Amino acid sequence: MRFIEKLENIWERNNSLVCVGLDPDITKIPEHLKHSGNSLFEFNKAIIDATADLVCAYKPQIAYYSAYSAENELEMTIAYLKENYPKIPIILDAKRGDIGSTAEMYVKEAFDRYKVDAVTVNPYMGTDTLLPFLAKKDKGIIILCRTSNPGAIDIQDLFCQNDKLYQIVANKASKEWNKNSNVLLVVGATYPKELKEIRKIIGDIPLLVPGIGAQGGNIEQAVINGKTKNGTGMIINSSRGIIYAGKGIDFAAESRKATIDLRDEINNYR
Amino acid sequence: MRFIEKLENIWERNNSLVCVGLDPDITKIPEHLKHSGNSLFEFNKAIIDATADLVCAYKPQIAYYSAYSAENELEMTIAYLKENYPKIPIILDAKRGDIGSTAEMYVKEAFDRYKVDAVTVNPYMGTDTLLPFLAKKDKGIIILCRTSNPGAIDIQDLFCQNDKLYQIVANKASKEWNKNSNVLLVVGATYPKELKEIRKIIGDIPLLVPGIGAQGGNIEQAVINGKTKNGTGMIINSSRGIIYAGKGIDFAAESRKATIDLRDEINNYR
Repeated sequence: MRFIEKLENIWERNNSLVCVGLDPDITKIPEHLKHSGNSLFEFNKAIIDATADLVCAYKPQIAYYSAYSAENELEMTIAYLKENYPKIPIILDAKRGDIGSTAEMYVKEAFDRYKVDAVTVNPYMGTDTLLPFLAKKDKGIIILCRTSNPGAIDIQDLFCQNDKLYQIVANKASKEWNKNSNVLLVVGATYPKELKEIRKIIGDIPLLVPGIGAQGGNIEQAVINGKTKNGTGMIINSSRGIIYAGKGIDFAAESRKATIDLRDEINNYR
Repeated sequence: MRFIEKLENIWERNNSLVCVGLDPDITKIPEHLKHSGNSLFEFNKAIIDATADLVCAYKPQIAYYSAYSAENELEMTIAYLKENYPKIPIILDAKRGDIGSTAEMYVKEAFDRYKVDAVTVNPYMGTDTLLPFLAKKDKGIIILCRTSNPGAIDIQDLFCQNDKLYQIVANKASKEWNKNSNVLLVVGATYPKELKEIRKIIGDIPLLVPGIGAQGGNIEQAVINGKTKNGTGMIINSSRGIIYAGKGIDFAAESRKATIDLRDEINNYR
């Protein structure tokens, strides 16, 4: 099934726009898991089992695994999801970007090795570096547009030929890069005005929206400005706010509570 | 020793600006190595032993390893280099870029896990995403500026507030980001005019220059436009042109010849 259909189905089935970021930091996970053989996987598994009926996607950030030589735990996490919750899309947050021959290798990394449904990519190097990803019709190709961090203004907000750079990226994404209807954009919840502008440019293209929770984005404004007419069109990510909601034995139950609260708050404004 | 000193020393010691890109594609390496237990490492080792007196750096591209779950062979390659050729800087070509907390993980990946001397990074997400890298005073932080691929024009050449985006990146690199004197820029040999402009903006900041060989950049023009006054300032990368110079049993000897030719051609114009 195409990523985009899988996403539409789960939005409806779970009535949720929440994506849980599986970014397990070995220094922050509960004490009782730190000495397990596969701490990161065990942590993820507990979070997944506690939240799988409440989310529209899971998004592991690859750096949290590669920093600790824990690619195998990322693979275990993905395999666990695919076996037990096959209807939930998996987004690999990797923000890759390189020339064609290397981009082909990153395509292999995401879709042959990790077998995820979607991957994040960086547009700085231009169209030819995106093409090997965009050729994957059944996958989701999620292009950085206007990110959630303070430094987003440094490059993405430069005025270029009458538009800001992120507006140019949004335009290219909808008019040039989306021939296979498999493009999504990353737009941070921390900048609701920009979310609104981008939604106007791109029509119904779905957005991956980081920046709520630890980063301080306002949920009401993000949803009102970012949703499509049918009240979907967004994958709203929370990582730290959900996975570290509790610190003890009951951390997974705490993460469930945090996910319910976030889902419900988002649904208030859809 | 700081990366930049290591680089200056090896430029002089080996009288070479050549960097060999260790991007071993399992489908392209010689037949007799394809069935070895660690094909990519064995291939790299032979290339390294044949070229170590001729280069100023080695640059493994991480995607060629991660696509095939071969991080261990990247680690073996780096360990081999550090043990046998400790004076040669190692650049991890990874083009990472993400928000602060994730950038910290990518810093760990490059410098704690892989223990390389320098890493390539993508500036699209802005200054705060570069800071965790820039804080590593002894390392080389190599920021994408004007890349060698055709699509470089799509984003990097946009006119933004009177300058092209890559010129703005070059300006920020030299004026804001280089407080620890550890910044380098990626500028493709395929665009000699832009190389010249960037050299003018950045003074003596070293450049990592891809795009000769398979990508077609002109060596004479690249060296004349990119060098500093003392005839250095460049790390000129060749991957496919060197590592696939031969296909048979004698592939390493062929790669040595190709490296000598490239070194000598570059040195003609320094």
